[in-house]
Amino acid sequence: MISRAGCRTRWSSPPRSSRVSTDPSIPFRAEAHALDAADPLAALRDAFVGAETSLVYFDGNSLGRPPRVTAERLGDFVTAEWGGRLIRGWDEAWMELPFRIGDRIGRSVLGAAAGQTIIADSTTVLLYKLLRAALAERSAADPERVEIVVARDDFPTDRYLVEGIAAERGARVVWIEVDTARGVDADRLRAAVGPHTAVVLLSHVSYRSGYLADAATLTRITHDAGALVLWDLCHSAGSVPVDLDAWGVDLAVGCTYKYLNGGPGSPAFAYVAERHHATLTQPIQGWMGAADVFAMGPEYRPAAGMRRFLSGTPPVLAMLAMQDTLDLIEDAGITAIREKSVALTEFALRVSDGILSPLGVTLASPRDSGERGGHVTLSHPAMRSVTARLWASDVIPDYRDPDGLRIGLAPLSTSFAEVLTGLGAVADAVRAEH
Amino acid sequence: MISRAGCRTRWSSPPRSSRVSTDPSIPFRAEAHALDAADPLAALRDAFVGAETSLVYFDGNSLGRPPRVTAERLGDFVTAEWGGRLIRGWDEAWMELPFRIGDRIGRSVLGAAAGQTIIADSTTVLLYKLLRAALAERSAADPERVEIVVARDDFPTDRYLVEGIAAERGARVVWIEVDTARGVDADRLRAAVGPHTAVVLLSHVSYRSGYLADAATLTRITHDAGALVLWDLCHSAGSVPVDLDAWGVDLAVGCTYKYLNGGPGSPAFAYVAERHHATLTQPIQGWMGAADVFAMGPEYRPAAGMRRFLSGTPPVLAMLAMQDTLDLIEDAGITAIREKSVALTEFALRVSDGILSPLGVTLASPRDSGERGGHVTLSHPAMRSVTARLWASDVIPDYRDPDGLRIGLAPLSTSFAEVLTGLGAVADAVRAEH
Repeated sequence: MISRAGCRTRWSSPPRSSRVSTDPSIPFRAEAHALDAADPLAALRDAFVGAETSLVYFDGNSLGRPPRVTAERLGDFVTAEWGGRLIRGWDEAWMELPFRIGDRIGRSVLGAAAGQTIIADSTTVLLYKLLRAALAERSAADPERVEIVVARDDFPTDRYLVEGIAAERGARVVWIEVDTARGVDADRLRAAVGPHTAVVLLSHVSYRSGYLADAATLTRITHDAGALVLWDLCHSAGSVPVDLDAWGVDLAVGCTYKYLNGGPGSPAFAYVAERHHATLTQPIQGWMGAADVFAMGPEYRPAAGMRRFLSGTPPVLAMLAMQDTLDLIEDAGITAIREKSVALTEFALRVSDGILSPLGVTLASPRDSGERGGHVTLSHPAMRSVTARLWASDVIPDYRDPDGLRIGLAPLSTSFAEVLTGLGAVADAVRAEH
Repeated sequence: MISRAGCRTRWSSPPRSSRVSTDPSIPFRAEAHALDAADPLAALRDAFVGAETSLVYFDGNSLGRPPRVTAERLGDFVTAEWGGRLIRGWDEAWMELPFRIGDRIGRSVLGAAAGQTIIADSTTVLLYKLLRAALAERSAADPERVEIVVARDDFPTDRYLVEGIAAERGARVVWIEVDTARGVDADRLRAAVGPHTAVVLLSHVSYRSGYLADAATLTRITHDAGALVLWDLCHSAGSVPVDLDAWGVDLAVGCTYKYLNGGPGSPAFAYVAERHHATLTQPIQGWMGAADVFAMGPEYRPAAGMRRFLSGTPPVLAMLAMQDTLDLIEDAGITAIREKSVALTEFALRVSDGILSPLGVTLASPRDSGERGGHVTLSHPAMRSVTARLWASDVIPDYRDPDGLRIGLAPLSTSFAEVLTGLGAVADAVRAEH
């Protein structure tokens, strides 16, 4: 009995060491180890909740992990600032917080000089306000400018807002068609803009393909057509260098709950170039955007500077957490963050080519890292159920209809070993679907 | 030297015991003590941060104190839910949070059946969305209905929004003039509405005078004129009983950082009566208001029910704290809360009549408690500098131009002894200004 069982075991299921030797990811193990060992940002991973667990997180571009210190920051705020200072907190610090944190994001993440960035509302509401402001200014300057340009595959909010604003303001939508794995390039934009263009809304990094647009060039093309550009930075801010002032950008909006780890539903940021502060006004006229907030005067006069783009009471509690990640970004520097981000996605592509391509998985992101942001999308007809399998085994990517597995690699909190483990699990899950 | 000094001291400044005996607030001490002893909600005060200090807080209607458990709730959320569940939190709980907490506020605070209340955005943004929705619906039904009615002394955001929307939509503003210490009553509203009225925007409790409007009657008058009513409940929700369904209200919006203690800048709530869900749409078309959020389809189709009034990603982190106060409100019941609120303001008026009226302080709030919300405004030409003196001595009221000291008495966290101490300090500060 014992010898037969031993015999059968040996042949029907090889011992662990020989089974492992057939794992196609083995050749990448030494590489992952070496990349982690050489990573100057490796130690930052331990700053995040959950770094000590075996969970693989491939969705830091949807909701970033919290730094460990954030729990304490929020608890302390409740007791000491909100509970201790009460309404005095507004005079002492909170009224300036949208500008103070905005300026920090401007300086550390956006390449924006002080006085041009605020934290407020949601991405959707800020995009609405700035699209309305830009359309109103351009069409007032030239009544023929009634077109808003947007990409057909842009994030739903961006498209829905443009549709709604066009309908309510009597403007027209000009759609830019985009190929899979691509985004808006210079030729496509040149073909879309002209003397009727008022505003161009573009995503710096495509939420779907990860395509990284050439923002400087597309901004120049927009300006050459006499229009204003509004950049959606949701998928780039905090992982890709952004240089709004140098690029001559007019307007930008972005998320703080992705690479800036502001927490679920944290408020957004908006940038308006200083040259537009006197001429742009937005439609949601609340007390916080008025020239003298506490005079509570008889009629609305927009404040000078960025305050005019505020509407309601600043969401203080919700804008605290992102400061912990700004500390880390300022320590690391956005150049080093981008270097690691590129190394992470390059490694992911090599592993995918090695172990996923043979299974029929294809790349739906640009292969050239100069055209790619911080995430990679992999396609396969079974990706919906693959995602469910992965989630059940604590490997957490995002899924995008109809067949996209989105691998978001937050540079501050992701290790190369994590990338390899996760993609190995993707291979197992794809195999299990066959 | 010693005897002369002693002698001079005795005559120029009486010994402490005899000085105290002239304090005009002494007759009220026994009353404050008795009222606190008989207060069925007295023990709830200890649930709040700072209840153990000597600070007098008269501004719970501007920013409510945090419950002590809120610090722990937020810290735990960061570590366990955000950090532990990561993006899975959206599927597991967060997507429903705007509706779940909204329904709780509806049930416990607003007299609203489930499915009609959400948490989202700021008060300003929600008022904008619902005003736009109501104006669009009414003027589509009857192109002659192009008037928005609002009170001249309403909160700045309300007036500014109405002005802005009227300008952008080609509507007209009809202003209701209101006397000091009053608000909009039936006669004034009847004179303002008619066949051209589309929407009436009214505050349930005036931020300035504390006037409590007869919401049932004013809603009926609005409906008789064929218009929709939008109630601003910022200064009533959580302190005054509200019965939206029974009153037949169409729309309502309110703050959660006042009597609901959601924290500085916490998101607002909106109520839309179910009969309007199919016909009202709002202009800020974001992905969270779309019929199928994750289908990310080619064009915006508004979701059924209250989801269509969402725009951006729900502000999860910022809507957590209010749940701790909802626990307390549900324990106490809104009827007992209102009873205590009335007792607090009645006591404040008696003390004010006794010790502040002789100093030239006048009442700028209704004297009849049936017409008064949870705060009382006291006028005196020196109130601006009186407020500065009070803040410096840890007595924290609010100041409203030109001469109003606003005494907000949050029923869950304010004691009668605190009212007396605070008004005694007001008397001292007014005297010091003479």
